[in-house]
Amino acid sequence: VQRFEHGHDAADKGLYRHYMLKEIYEQPDVIARVLEGRIHQGHVLEQVFGSGASELFDQVKMVQIVACGTSYNAGVVARYWIEKLVGIPCMVEVASEFRYRKTVCMPGTLFITISQSGETADTLSALREAKEQNYLGFLSICNVAGSSLVRESDLAIMTNAGPEIGVASTKAFTSQLVVLMLTTLVLARRYGFDGEQEIVAQLEQLIDLTEQVLALDPQIQKMAEHFVDKHHALFLGRGTIYPVAVEGALKLKEISYIHAEAYPAGELKHGPLALVDEDMPVVAIAPNNSLLEKLQANLEEVRARGGKLFLFADSKAQVKPGNDLELITLPDVPTVMAPIIYSIPLQLLAYYVACLKGTDVDQPRNLAKSVTVE
Amino acid sequence: VQRFEHGHDAADKGLYRHYMLKEIYEQPDVIARVLEGRIHQGHVLEQVFGSGASELFDQVKMVQIVACGTSYNAGVVARYWIEKLVGIPCMVEVASEFRYRKTVCMPGTLFITISQSGETADTLSALREAKEQNYLGFLSICNVAGSSLVRESDLAIMTNAGPEIGVASTKAFTSQLVVLMLTTLVLARRYGFDGEQEIVAQLEQLIDLTEQVLALDPQIQKMAEHFVDKHHALFLGRGTIYPVAVEGALKLKEISYIHAEAYPAGELKHGPLALVDEDMPVVAIAPNNSLLEKLQANLEEVRARGGKLFLFADSKAQVKPGNDLELITLPDVPTVMAPIIYSIPLQLLAYYVACLKGTDVDQPRNLAKSVTVE
Repeated sequence: VQRFEHGHDAADKGLYRHYMLKEIYEQPDVIARVLEGRIHQGHVLEQVFGSGASELFDQVKMVQIVACGTSYNAGVVARYWIEKLVGIPCMVEVASEFRYRKTVCMPGTLFITISQSGETADTLSALREAKEQNYLGFLSICNVAGSSLVRESDLAIMTNAGPEIGVASTKAFTSQLVVLMLTTLVLARRYGFDGEQEIVAQLEQLIDLTEQVLALDPQIQKMAEHFVDKHHALFLGRGTIYPVAVEGALKLKEISYIHAEAYPAGELKHGPLALVDEDMPVVAIAPNNSLLEKLQANLEEVRARGGKLFLFADSKAQVKPGNDLELITLPDVPTVMAPIIYSIPLQLLAYYVACLKGTDVDQPRNLAKSVTVE
Repeated sequence: VQRFEHGHDAADKGLYRHYMLKEIYEQPDVIARVLEGRIHQGHVLEQVFGSGASELFDQVKMVQIVACGTSYNAGVVARYWIEKLVGIPCMVEVASEFRYRKTVCMPGTLFITISQSGETADTLSALREAKEQNYLGFLSICNVAGSSLVRESDLAIMTNAGPEIGVASTKAFTSQLVVLMLTTLVLARRYGFDGEQEIVAQLEQLIDLTEQVLALDPQIQKMAEHFVDKHHALFLGRGTIYPVAVEGALKLKEISYIHAEAYPAGELKHGPLALVDEDMPVVAIAPNNSLLEKLQANLEEVRARGGKLFLFADSKAQVKPGNDLELITLPDVPTVMAPIIYSIPLQLLAYYVACLKGTDVDQPRNLAKSVTVE
């Protein structure tokens, strides 16, 4: 296993072997940049969403998110946040599906698009389709100012992640999550949510937490060795962590070409458990004990089938590592921040597996950075 | 490859080698039974949903479907139907996710559960959770009269599929789809939909169409040979056919232990395309040309990567079979019936692959027929 020196302000790849690793390591800085100028005295500033944002947000009764790939996964996390903290319905749909079917637009629905490049063809077409309907307004969450998506939306908020060169998205994803939390908060305050200052404080602590998680790098490099000769993997999560599992599996697919698939943990026994044997490692992401307890029965079944478990959990997890269980212990994090924090070790895992397999990490086969064609 | 005699009224397994094959072949009869007594002069009878159904349906403004596994896949098809034909929002969620998160209940929302056994633990718990909320009413779509789900719901409609012994659900799925279409129609007539008689006529033609599709059995047996030495497969579909692709992949997982995964076709280029090579067959389900055109670019990419394509399409498909493309041509079917019809060849494909691999088709490893524990 190769080791590298990490430097946070490296220009281009700097001391990093790949852009992807550099971009993973930039995440504490990126999170700081996402928050910069957006927070004042523990509250999210609304003007950062664009002029007329407050008036538009006042009328939001429902949210429709449309995106592709990694951005879609960020949208699914936001759905859980919005329904929990705002208490209004939030639908999320893959752009290529949304644009080709007859959808229903309810009065007061805010239409949110998410895209790193702002040029994703299906997302842009979905936005244009939606503009023919009765949506309340259009908000774009994007990493490129002046992109088509931003220009064609009423409101936009930048993810400020800086250029992302690696085809497999990393810092773009976590920055989208932070922006989606800011969006959740400005909507939630209109529905009587009183926890904004607490969550803003947690967002500010994210920078440190992200650094702590990056320090797990050597452990994750070691864990990666178990995946080199594998052709499959199953990723399990629940709630906000389910889309994090989906994103983790997508990373492994994209750059290591391992067929990784994610399931909401409760669905395991409705089919995929048949796949589990010694050739199918199971990656379980269980940031707190109440989730872990629910996973426990599943995990026992996986072990009983000779499957090996790779568990990402916090210090309160009541499990013992052993031959059939590898454990990475993360710092304790507030529940609502878990999707952001737990994404990072999964990025590192995919990265180190790909390095060990010798694939072209920054330019995986068949994939383009921005999918600007249908 | 073994061949069997098929008889439709066989008691127990009869002349069939497995319950699953018998149950696949029962589908024309099952569809006839689902429709029996539910249709009058081209219209769906509302009293078959239970007493008070009409009054309850009059107030429906939104639909929330909750289910697990195969039943969840049926629910996703219904979502497309309801949003298109009724024009009201329809949300679908995996029961194990729904029950453990804070969800939002909008006024006028009909809560629908789907379960073959009516005893699925997560679905039953989700129903009980939902009853604490403000839902308009509770409809259960179920194959077992007197089951817990039926007893605890305001309304219920039976799928009349008869006992299903094979663990991998087949006739239960198609009968759920037919019942979901009946449900869609009774809601749609309240929102000015004028195509009910046309769709009812199409439902009545389903019986014949199903027979025609079953006659493709020898071709599908032959196609199955290509999968025997494979460890992966990718299933692609769009719109109502996307959940059919998910269900097709689930069948292959459950009984052949091949790691099959489904994607909405438009998402292929956002990651999974990196997986495609000569070891990853791609199954594309494209019941009409407008879908096929959209798939065409994807399919070219798959071919360029050495991937082999297995296409299920109708007679208008503009493709030539060859070394890199196997084609099964289905009868032309009305768009809205395609999810029901196209499910059947995918069941047969999974069945014959499993037979060739010598797995325990009716009792796949690790799985139970009814998941009555969490």
